[in-house]
Amino acid sequence: MSELGKKVWFFPDGDLPAPGEGELKGHESLVILNPNAIDAEIKIIVYFTDRDPEILNAGKVKAQRVRCIRTNEPIDGFQIPLGQYALTIESTAGVVAQIGRMDVAQPNLAYYTTMGYGT
Amino acid sequence: MSELGKKVWFFPDGDLPAPGEGELKGHESLVILNPNAIDAEIKIIVYFTDRDPEILNAGKVKAQRVRCIRTNEPIDGFQIPLGQYALTIESTAGVVAQIGRMDVAQPNLAYYTTMGYGT
Amino acid sequence: MSELGKKVWFFPDGDLPAPGEGELKGHESLVILNPNAIDAEIKIIVYFTDRDPEILNAGKVKAQRVRCIRTNEPIDGFQIPLGQYALTIESTAGVVAQIGRMDVAQPNLAYYTTMGYGT
Amino acid sequence: MSELGKKVWFFPDGDLPAPGEGELKGHESLVILNPNAIDAEIKIIVYFTDRDPEILNAGKVKAQRVRCIRTNEPIDGFQIPLGQYALTIESTAGVVAQIGRMDVAQPNLAYYTTMGYGT
Repeated sequence: MSELGKKVWFFPDGDLPAPGEGELKGHESLVILNPNAIDAEIKIIVYFTDRDPEILNAGKVKAQRVRCIRTNEPIDGFQIPLGQYALTIESTAGVVAQIGRMDVAQPNLAYYTTMGYGT
Repeated sequence: MSELGKKVWFFPDGDLPAPGEGELKGHESLVILNPNAIDAEIKIIVYFTDRDPEILNAGKVKAQRVRCIRTNEPIDGFQIPLGQYALTIESTAGVVAQIGRMDVAQPNLAYYTTMGYGT
Repeated sequence: MSELGKKVWFFPDGDLPAPGEGELKGHESLVILNPNAIDAEIKIIVYFTDRDPEILNAGKVKAQRVRCIRTNEPIDGFQIPLGQYALTIESTAGVVAQIGRMDVAQPNLAYYTTMGYGT
Repeated sequence: MSELGKKVWFFPDGDLPAPGEGELKGHESLVILNPNAIDAEIKIIVYFTDRDPEILNAGKVKAQRVRCIRTNEPIDGFQIPLGQYALTIESTAGVVAQIGRMDVAQPNLAYYTTMGYGT
């Protein structure tokens, strides 16, 4: 049947902010919505500037649920290092994915977000 | 005839900011443009991390009008709780939808916005 | 021939910021790139929450040029009032359009931007 | 074979921020992910408000790598001047591209980002 969303999403500009020392910690959040009636198994591919990508098993996003994955915490036992990286999400079911960053390199927060490029 | 816009829009990363105590209150705004010559009836589906979605009747966006829906205020008698959630909009006519957040967790505002993923 | 870009772009969430009293003035910028070899004639439709839209003649974006239109300044003799509005761009040639806002309601700037929804 | 991503990306709203005098320098970053198994040769076209575009050879993004290009540094020997400009990327292989800006015109940073318009 016609599933909602897309099975592949790209996020070119990943760049983990330093956590900082304030109450609010700098982080990046990858948020995945599964609007379909079946669970989605998620694979994350992490790309770097100068080495081969890592392929990680990120578990599932259950049917009709949203899940937030912090990229500053280990995924499938792998901690993305500080610095430039990119992400691809591959899902067994249609999903919609967005990434946001909170930066605390300064006294006040800077936030931004972008929808992924889905295909 | 060929209607402008799309009838389904996804917003994965909802996360209501605390209102704060300053003059400007933290909030999220869902903005819907109906560029067509007929009214659009809007249904909003709210997804959560750990429970079934809520389906809300959000009324209409009249023909050739724009409407702003605050997600920190009750919709169809339902108040979205603080924390992670996602939204789907289903419309009877083609529309274009965008979400923005104003965060006041800090002395200075942080804003961001993204166009939805329309299908 | 196959023109680059799209002829219709939607921007649901317009909301003119107050100009403020600092050196940097709050504003919204609609930026249009014409990557094609022919000039593009631009029509802007301004939508409101509670009245009929205004259709404005915004002149042209020349072939292979980019043009920035400030929405806080009059367009075709019409000044968009403060408050919620939406924009549609209709172009005679394919273009790519993006909107950005600089807000100075606070001591520090808040910026954001989004690509339009093109069709 | 079916390559991932797109070969042409548009970024209408380029506007180089002044570098400023703090530790963090204002800049714009064009980030390109090549998720394919072949290298991508990148050409960047810089558009202006009032003169003909510049066509620059930006080298390659290797297979399965991400690359960040600072637009405030010379590309192919050409330094984009301060002020309004737009970018088109043309690639020999499918890529996904995003642009971000860090602005330091004020004591605190302002950041934003947007996915390009790919075609």
